[in-house]
Amino acid sequence: MSISIDTVRAAAAHIRAYVHRTPVMTCHSLDERVGAQVFMKCENLQKVGAFKFRGACNAVFSLAATEAAHGVATHSSGNHAQALALAARLRGIPAYIVMPRNAPAVKQAAVAGYGGLITLCEPVLAARESTLAEIVAATGAAVVHPYNDARVIAGQGTAALELLEDVPDLDVIIAPVGGGGLLSGTAIAAKALAPRIRVLAAEPAGADDAFRSLAAGHIVPSMQPQTIADGLLTSLGELTFPIIREQVEQIVTVSDAAIIDAMKFVWERAKLIVEPSGMTPIAALWEGKIDLRGLRVGVILSGGNVDLEHLPWQA
Amino acid sequence: MSISIDTVRAAAAHIRAYVHRTPVMTCHSLDERVGAQVFMKCENLQKVGAFKFRGACNAVFSLAATEAAHGVATHSSGNHAQALALAARLRGIPAYIVMPRNAPAVKQAAVAGYGGLITLCEPVLAARESTLAEIVAATGAAVVHPYNDARVIAGQGTAALELLEDVPDLDVIIAPVGGGGLLSGTAIAAKALAPRIRVLAAEPAGADDAFRSLAAGHIVPSMQPQTIADGLLTSLGELTFPIIREQVEQIVTVSDAAIIDAMKFVWERAKLIVEPSGMTPIAALWEGKIDLRGLRVGVILSGGNVDLEHLPWQA
Repeated sequence: MSISIDTVRAAAAHIRAYVHRTPVMTCHSLDERVGAQVFMKCENLQKVGAFKFRGACNAVFSLAATEAAHGVATHSSGNHAQALALAARLRGIPAYIVMPRNAPAVKQAAVAGYGGLITLCEPVLAARESTLAEIVAATGAAVVHPYNDARVIAGQGTAALELLEDVPDLDVIIAPVGGGGLLSGTAIAAKALAPRIRVLAAEPAGADDAFRSLAAGHIVPSMQPQTIADGLLTSLGELTFPIIREQVEQIVTVSDAAIIDAMKFVWERAKLIVEPSGMTPIAALWEGKIDLRGLRVGVILSGGNVDLEHLPWQA
Repeated sequence: MSISIDTVRAAAAHIRAYVHRTPVMTCHSLDERVGAQVFMKCENLQKVGAFKFRGACNAVFSLAATEAAHGVATHSSGNHAQALALAARLRGIPAYIVMPRNAPAVKQAAVAGYGGLITLCEPVLAARESTLAEIVAATGAAVVHPYNDARVIAGQGTAALELLEDVPDLDVIIAPVGGGGLLSGTAIAAKALAPRIRVLAAEPAGADDAFRSLAAGHIVPSMQPQTIADGLLTSLGELTFPIIREQVEQIVTVSDAAIIDAMKFVWERAKLIVEPSGMTPIAALWEGKIDLRGLRVGVILSGGNVDLEHLPWQA
């Protein structure tokens, strides 16, 4: 299935009744600090605190009734899990969620709060996949992959669609990249709506598999990533990699130190709770590794699920 | 000077170019928790992180050029100080700010960052007033009182004006009350736009001078208030008291424990950084001291200036 702006528009119509149309915020002191005009698409204010709800909703409500009856299942380090649990609850079907043992307590509690049925596993991809396979065999649930799924990619693209409806004359758009679902959807929507826009991605330097994949020309798996951005630990997928290779100009890697500095600044000055993964686009501006001075830059603040007992700038 | 909806509308036109039109947010899990439909007017996302910028802007830009040339001056525990400093900078005039010595470090830094000229004093009203009088005598600056000023009250009322433009069919509106500027402006705007709306106020139990003032029928000064809500320590003023007595149905007092519980919930679930003072309206719903079940309730989240190194739910 080829994903186009029409697929994204169809997803937008499909999920409209369930998602928040999130605001686009500006912050003068941030603009002064980074030397660009930054337009923040606040997906941290989306339901379940992340853009992931868009893709999960589109996937869940696309299922035929007979298929849906067996429920849905996935493995996820956090935000996709919450998103799928809530989308399934809205449709009245079970959601089986495989989570790594080291997922933050606040994320596990949130999944359970949305009615998700959690199975914990070792925090490596092989364990996630085998655990998920067992659950699917036992229940007949439909797997909704966190990013390597056309319905999910199209749903994620609706955030950029809304951003460009609100601010049509952006020069650049930057999204975080983990598995590439958000980035793929963003690129498809942005390039179709504003052909001259530059689409960039931001990735933690300690989990730079997407950066290395583009350099190598094939998917380089994420091995033992080390970063505070716990939503961006996964590898690109077979669906997302070709879209990114074709439509994304550059992947900028950012340090955890820049993520934390920028995060505290945005909390303090913009009053927005953004999680480390969601701060990577602003961290890219913060470190000045790319020259976007004077430009109008859209950034997707992808999520806001943070353990408030343990903030990264506190000793 | 009588303050009417026309005064508030004039203020709205006056300050439009300078203020953010802040979003109105909803949060399903909050609604479930409190049993009402809550519409949050996010003045924590206002410039300088508080509604105070509305009133300060209206006051500063109302000054005649000859008067403005000498600058403006005020005493404030925080948010009004930042607001006046930024408004003055936008007009290109000096702002002399008297702050109590115990004002949070982050608030002092923010005032300085906006170019405000800070004089610290003892944290009692008499010291604030005498220090301010000395500065005015030396500079000829125009005093802009944090709340007992018609221009300020009219400016603060623009938040409720916008809220009711976005959500016209509210049953109730709740604002925090400290000196009463926000509450007065809110009541004037709300009662004019929606005559059947109930206007309530929320006040910390440890600083319940407004509650006691309404009961006594005259202004009861705030003496040694003890609350985490550091923006609500002041007494009502001669201008604000009569408006509140006439138009506000009830003042609900809330515990610091409810403020902190509700604050953590809103940070965690709505991803909004709200300061303790700004949480008092939701704390009133949280404690269930008033029965607003099933109603459509607008709340003014008045500010978001918090010291992120020291959060109240952390040991």
